[in-house]
Amino acid sequence: MYVTKSPLSDADQKTVAEALQGALVDLVDLSLVAKQVHWNVVGPRFRSVHLQLDEVVDTARQHSDTVAERASTLGISPDGRAATVAQSSGIGKTPEGWVKDSDAIGVLVDALGAVITRFRERVERTDKPDPVTQDIFISITADLEKHHWMFQAENS
Amino acid sequence: MYVTKSPLSDADQKTVAEALQGALVDLVDLSLVAKQVHWNVVGPRFRSVHLQLDEVVDTARQHSDTVAERASTLGISPDGRAATVAQSSGIGKTPEGWVKDSDAIGVLVDALGAVITRFRERVERTDKPDPVTQDIFISITADLEKHHWMFQAENS
Amino acid sequence: MYVTKSPLSDADQKTVAEALQGALVDLVDLSLVAKQVHWNVVGPRFRSVHLQLDEVVDTARQHSDTVAERASTLGISPDGRAATVAQSSGIGKTPEGWVKDSDAIGVLVDALGAVITRFRERVERTDKPDPVTQDIFISITADLEKHHWMFQAENS
Amino acid sequence: MYVTKSPLSDADQKTVAEALQGALVDLVDLSLVAKQVHWNVVGPRFRSVHLQLDEVVDTARQHSDTVAERASTLGISPDGRAATVAQSSGIGKTPEGWVKDSDAIGVLVDALGAVITRFRERVERTDKPDPVTQDIFISITADLEKHHWMFQAENS
Amino acid sequence: MYVTKSPLSDADQKTVAEALQGALVDLVDLSLVAKQVHWNVVGPRFRSVHLQLDEVVDTARQHSDTVAERASTLGISPDGRAATVAQSSGIGKTPEGWVKDSDAIGVLVDALGAVITRFRERVERTDKPDPVTQDIFISITADLEKHHWMFQAENS
Amino acid sequence: MYVTKSPLSDADQKTVAEALQGALVDLVDLSLVAKQVHWNVVGPRFRSVHLQLDEVVDTARQHSDTVAERASTLGISPDGRAATVAQSSGIGKTPEGWVKDSDAIGVLVDALGAVITRFRERVERTDKPDPVTQDIFISITADLEKHHWMFQAENS
Amino acid sequence: MYVTKSPLSDADQKTVAEALQGALVDLVDLSLVAKQVHWNVVGPRFRSVHLQLDEVVDTARQHSDTVAERASTLGISPDGRAATVAQSSGIGKTPEGWVKDSDAIGVLVDALGAVITRFRERVERTDKPDPVTQDIFISITADLEKHHWMFQAENS
Amino acid sequence: MYVTKSPLSDADQKTVAEALQGALVDLVDLSLVAKQVHWNVVGPRFRSVHLQLDEVVDTARQHSDTVAERASTLGISPDGRAATVAQSSGIGKTPEGWVKDSDAIGVLVDALGAVITRFRERVERTDKPDPVTQDIFISITADLEKHHWMFQAENS
Amino acid sequence: MYVTKSPLSDADQKTVAEALQGALVDLVDLSLVAKQVHWNVVGPRFRSVHLQLDEVVDTARQHSDTVAERASTLGISPDGRAATVAQSSGIGKTPEGWVKDSDAIGVLVDALGAVITRFRERVERTDKPDPVTQDIFISITADLEKHHWMFQAENS
Amino acid sequence: MYVTKSPLSDADQKTVAEALQGALVDLVDLSLVAKQVHWNVVGPRFRSVHLQLDEVVDTARQHSDTVAERASTLGISPDGRAATVAQSSGIGKTPEGWVKDSDAIGVLVDALGAVITRFRERVERTDKPDPVTQDIFISITADLEKHHWMFQAENS
Amino acid sequence: MYVTKSPLSDADQKTVAEALQGALVDLVDLSLVAKQVHWNVVGPRFRSVHLQLDEVVDTARQHSDTVAERASTLGISPDGRAATVAQSSGIGKTPEGWVKDSDAIGVLVDALGAVITRFRERVERTDKPDPVTQDIFISITADLEKHHWMFQAENS
Amino acid sequence: MYVTKSPLSDADQKTVAEALQGALVDLVDLSLVAKQVHWNVVGPRFRSVHLQLDEVVDTARQHSDTVAERASTLGISPDGRAATVAQSSGIGKTPEGWVKDSDAIGVLVDALGAVITRFRERVERTDKPDPVTQDIFISITADLEKHHWMFQAENS
Repeated sequence: MYVTKSPLSDADQKTVAEALQGALVDLVDLSLVAKQVHWNVVGPRFRSVHLQLDEVVDTARQHSDTVAERASTLGISPDGRAATVAQSSGIGKTPEGWVKDSDAIGVLVDALGAVITRFRERVERTDKPDPVTQDIFISITADLEKHHWMFQAENS
Repeated sequence: MYVTKSPLSDADQKTVAEALQGALVDLVDLSLVAKQVHWNVVGPRFRSVHLQLDEVVDTARQHSDTVAERASTLGISPDGRAATVAQSSGIGKTPEGWVKDSDAIGVLVDALGAVITRFRERVERTDKPDPVTQDIFISITADLEKHHWMFQAENS
Repeated sequence: MYVTKSPLSDADQKTVAEALQGALVDLVDLSLVAKQVHWNVVGPRFRSVHLQLDEVVDTARQHSDTVAERASTLGISPDGRAATVAQSSGIGKTPEGWVKDSDAIGVLVDALGAVITRFRERVERTDKPDPVTQDIFISITADLEKHHWMFQAENS
Repeated sequence: MYVTKSPLSDADQKTVAEALQGALVDLVDLSLVAKQVHWNVVGPRFRSVHLQLDEVVDTARQHSDTVAERASTLGISPDGRAATVAQSSGIGKTPEGWVKDSDAIGVLVDALGAVITRFRERVERTDKPDPVTQDIFISITADLEKHHWMFQAENS
Repeated sequence: MYVTKSPLSDADQKTVAEALQGALVDLVDLSLVAKQVHWNVVGPRFRSVHLQLDEVVDTARQHSDTVAERASTLGISPDGRAATVAQSSGIGKTPEGWVKDSDAIGVLVDALGAVITRFRERVERTDKPDPVTQDIFISITADLEKHHWMFQAENS
Repeated sequence: MYVTKSPLSDADQKTVAEALQGALVDLVDLSLVAKQVHWNVVGPRFRSVHLQLDEVVDTARQHSDTVAERASTLGISPDGRAATVAQSSGIGKTPEGWVKDSDAIGVLVDALGAVITRFRERVERTDKPDPVTQDIFISITADLEKHHWMFQAENS
Repeated sequence: MYVTKSPLSDADQKTVAEALQGALVDLVDLSLVAKQVHWNVVGPRFRSVHLQLDEVVDTARQHSDTVAERASTLGISPDGRAATVAQSSGIGKTPEGWVKDSDAIGVLVDALGAVITRFRERVERTDKPDPVTQDIFISITADLEKHHWMFQAENS
Repeated sequence: MYVTKSPLSDADQKTVAEALQGALVDLVDLSLVAKQVHWNVVGPRFRSVHLQLDEVVDTARQHSDTVAERASTLGISPDGRAATVAQSSGIGKTPEGWVKDSDAIGVLVDALGAVITRFRERVERTDKPDPVTQDIFISITADLEKHHWMFQAENS
Repeated sequence: MYVTKSPLSDADQKTVAEALQGALVDLVDLSLVAKQVHWNVVGPRFRSVHLQLDEVVDTARQHSDTVAERASTLGISPDGRAATVAQSSGIGKTPEGWVKDSDAIGVLVDALGAVITRFRERVERTDKPDPVTQDIFISITADLEKHHWMFQAENS
Repeated sequence: MYVTKSPLSDADQKTVAEALQGALVDLVDLSLVAKQVHWNVVGPRFRSVHLQLDEVVDTARQHSDTVAERASTLGISPDGRAATVAQSSGIGKTPEGWVKDSDAIGVLVDALGAVITRFRERVERTDKPDPVTQDIFISITADLEKHHWMFQAENS
Repeated sequence: MYVTKSPLSDADQKTVAEALQGALVDLVDLSLVAKQVHWNVVGPRFRSVHLQLDEVVDTARQHSDTVAERASTLGISPDGRAATVAQSSGIGKTPEGWVKDSDAIGVLVDALGAVITRFRERVERTDKPDPVTQDIFISITADLEKHHWMFQAENS
Repeated sequence: MYVTKSPLSDADQKTVAEALQGALVDLVDLSLVAKQVHWNVVGPRFRSVHLQLDEVVDTARQHSDTVAERASTLGISPDGRAATVAQSSGIGKTPEGWVKDSDAIGVLVDALGAVITRFRERVERTDKPDPVTQDIFISITADLEKHHWMFQAENS
């Protein structure tokens, strides 16, 4: 049915489509994981971690919107439904139930680490096909790595 | 491990726990469904529907946070992870790919209708066990029903 | 023509419809009465009463909108036209022309008193049929009674 | 009782009084009509018309306050009570019940058209008696005509 | 030395210059009188009158700036120095020392009355020579007359 | 002397009066206790606890005002004087002098626990006599229980 | 095709149409000229002139929108396209390339002077046909003349 | 246990400690007294006095926080608990129940008068020991004396 | 006369100059075209398209300023005068007179499409000569393509 | 008639009264002088000096209010009427008519210099009688001296 | 060359100059030290300390500006260059590399302690020569001592 | 001790570390130099240059924070201490004492020129090792070059 005029060649379109869909799933899942820990964290550092996690949620929500709308912009239908996220996210299984504050930090260090690795690959893969999409990925990577530093610094 | 002093009896706690966990899953899924359609809608009413859906997302996100933190407050660990949402949401399957604007409105009428029915039951079931939780459910129902009206009015 | 799927039974729908339509008329009239006195008050307390009345107007306008949209939400067409308000308002006749400040306060004490009595009945009547509507009526009653106190306190 | 020192001659005062009282009634009724349609509109353009009508309400409310206070300023007691509005408004009868969106636009085109004609006459009639009041009428006419354009543009 | 290209003829320039210089002096003096009473008022209505006077000060200060800059715009050097204001203001002598609240209101009724009369004359005199300046005088008159009404209403 | 027309029967009035007066004292004392610990806390978690306590103070101050004005609204003279608070508060004795951060959290867990128990009883007792007052108590309980959760979560 | 009901006679409509179209072109060109100089100015007063020019741009952009929408309101299709502006603007040729700051001020004195002369004529010509449009022109003239004063004052 | 390095000698520390503790108690009590009258005032000036009292509450709350944190800063544990306030405040007994508006003003004139006298002594006593604390007391005295003036002016 | 020290070689300077001047003209013209349609659009979707076009105007105005100042920064005199825009814009002829809403969307789809193609070329051409300018072009392309998507989505 | 309870002895009261009345007159005059030059300045630095003078006006107006209310607080009736200012201000005669920008700066350097000298004396004279008033004078002196520096720096 | 008219005698000028220059260097260095630790802190309390340090930076930056401009105001050229700061700061050597959170707190306790001691001396030394400068030093000391308290409280 | 997991190879890490550390020092020094001139500038353009310099300070402070936190993010300990800045900054020696306004502009043209050259090299050197860091450098360069243009434009 609906067809957008994409400025990219078919091959580039395919590469960029995979990168954007993967990025969307990772970011939506990151927002859900961070909220899950935001609600379940306990321990002396509860308040500090609770607040910090909402900043991760904000980052993840804003960037997931940018990524999905970039996909639509290129004529690629984005898929951010719960089942799709549950199946294809790059983040490992989040623990069930209450989470001790130090473990909560570990969960985020791992989740952010996994997502960052995949984003660095996407930055490389989209360089030639679409510098506009690459620029978006670079900004997201900068923000995710900054969050990653902060949780690592707290983890020492 | 971590145990909160709940002001409720064990039986009431169980009733309220089920209601809160169900409400959380419905609201998280509603936020994901509304975003999915927000990104995939096409047609002459694109702009209007696109903006309206973000208001549903805001409602769903705010209330999901309130519901999850109410659960934690009562010593009930909330579960809002992607897999849990995918498996237990009260909303039917959202269509894949681009959505015509009139269909988009139908998707929301159905999704909101399903969630509202479940919320009305939760209002009834929590009346005795915990009027505080019931009060939260009543406010959420009011907001969801208002969104429901607007999509129905557009559907005529 | 246009039919909304109401979550209420027919009998409940009728009870709630009457309560909402009555509430709408009372609140629209209260906003008109308060503005009328806001413009016509004279006397040493002019400035204080003039400002206080605009707070009543704000309360009445906001709540009339909430009540009318609640009606639409339940598939009940609200009627807030001038003629309908003139015929069915619960507030007695407002005096014509300039109003001395002490009389102005009396006008409001009476108008608020009449409206509050009717709202307390609506709170009772909607308890079973629709707790969502009842919750809206409870909030409105709280605000009206607070204004009522202030005008009574000034009247002593 | 209360007498304000009017800067106008008796004849001018009478002309201006009639113009202000007529303007007040038209504007109060316009605010009620626009709200009535705001609540009862249905159809594919629901959201757009619903929002647009609240901008008419804002315009009508602000200007009705300015007009009524201008009357008081000149020692003319303004009358904006529901019965007065119901009897002397220049706007024709508003339909009862749900209104299809295209009809809603027609209702506003007619209502604004009727009010604008009367305001243009008031601008002329107050030129000599009171340029200050005339200036207020000119500003109101500009705003009403702008709303009129927008509804007409949508009507084509 | 410095000469601005005025869009007015020499005769019109002279008429407008006198009107603007007179308006400037009246407004600067009004701001000083209102502040004087703001500081010296005593009595049960102290707070209400004290606050109301600062609104007169705001009006007078804003308009005096507009009037003076309008003069400069037309190449007329405005004179708002203390001695000039003391000598040529249209406002009568303000009482020294503490002022009872009811007297304070009388002082403002008189001061505003005197200034308004002069502004109404300026509106008439500038109609032909410069409609731009006239438009400014009409707006100022509207504001001054509104303050006048409020003090008169309190005076009854 | 001064008598307000209460919408409640005498028996209901008495029940509600006791509940409101008790609630007022508890909330005023909670604000004083939270400030006391805000100033006296020491230890590694100083900053986090210091900030968190000011949020409790905000909650307690806002709700104490709502409760006291609700009493006045019903014609019940509220008593929030220091001596009354010192004698009838439901919160146990607050320790003198510096408080270690972990102890500070314990003080708040206990204070909030005591106040919540009393509020839950007030919710039950006011259900029939005055649903408006009950609704206020339900909202307050929700907020207090949320603070209670957070301090308990930090306490584990 | 599309026809708006104009409140003006055909002859008046024609006069007002010419005035509005001319005003639109002048204001759009003024905004482009001011931006051109904003980017190209050099010299010791660079910063001051650079900032001042953006205030002219703001004035010109806001008023061009008002003027064009006033035209549409009267059923006159406004034309603000680049070619139309290039052909019919009342402003003389703007110099190419870098502009010394003192020259920049001269460019603006001339451009504003030319536009003001034409606006003063439009104020006169629209007085009878449409006082609403005239009122808009008067306000614009006031703003343009104020900017003109400031550049002339700097030019001395 | 916890010992802060005070910049003061032991004798100065003692003088300053007494002054700060006394100031804290006076300010906390002033905030409670002003709130008590804010809730219980009745009479024609109700609204004006009600609003004015909340400004006293704001002043008292802000300064009590500053004073208590200044104490902590110097290693002096502040004591603002209800019982301490009830026992050592410099303000006389506040009347129980409803307070006529003119009496309310008298209560505040007395309360502020008592507190100001003690603050003037504290300003003198802390001049040498700690000019930083003295500077805080001077600012507080300025604010309290301004409130005192306003209530006295209303009292005449 | 005025010479800025450019950080680029002469050849790179020339390439970047052409790209910046072309970008400036395209963006200024886009802002004029979008405004033209904003004023002339008619049809059922009037309001939605009217509002959407002002967002394009904002984008175009902000970026045109960035581009022109980037040119000045590199010592390249930018040319955004009406005649230059009329002659060298990459956007085809905009229709005269009223525009049906569906046609309006087509006009924007074409205009944005033309500008985007040219920007993609500029991104490529400036990669080596000046990555700073390229980065600005990438951001602009992202914004333009997002607007393009939205108009295309409405067009289906 | 009206007598405030002053916290000062009669001798101190007299010293402080003279200082406050002198300060009031100086500050009111400074605000009038700065406005006079703000309107009459011409020359290449017009814009910079014009804006800078309004910051002096703000400073002078705010401090004059503080000083006058401090007088009232101590039971001293302040006198800020035009004639009083014209007769007793410490600022020399301000030139009539247009002022060249460099001369404008000289006028301010002199005016500020004169006022500062008198304020430094007031700081000394009020040290013992009333440290609260002295503290106000110190703050004012700091602000005036900062403005003085800036005009002197521009003067070199 | 440039000479400001200082209100101080030569001896006082010298004393005040030394105090201001010393204060400037201390505050600039404090801002650099706090930023250094803000970036290098690690450990469980990372987030809390990281945020707290930026509040110290804000305090130090604002006060350094006030102090430097006070120097300029008195005709004393302030010196805040990196080399000057490195040579004459009162703060000891800041550790290189990552800093454990508990050590970070110690670094600030020491740095603030050192600066406060010097400021207390400056307060004493400037009392006679310039009470305006002394008042600035007193305010800065109050802020620094408050930060000092907070870090000490966390250190226990 | 503390080790962050860097996403870069060891060689890339070293290259990026040097670039970030150099950039940090340059930006911190730029903020100190701009403040130094901000305080010491004199001459007719004092106000304009004084304000412009604070915009450079804002730019330099924001970017220095971004750069330092980017270093920490990659596990590189940033060093922004006064001594480090004094020794390794790329900006030449800033003159001591008062600076004439035209010289002040020259100081900034030179300082910005030196820093920009070094940033252009960093952009090139980080392209392969870390595009995320490169993107940050590109943005900073754009801002610095814009400031450079403005000072150069004023210098002509």
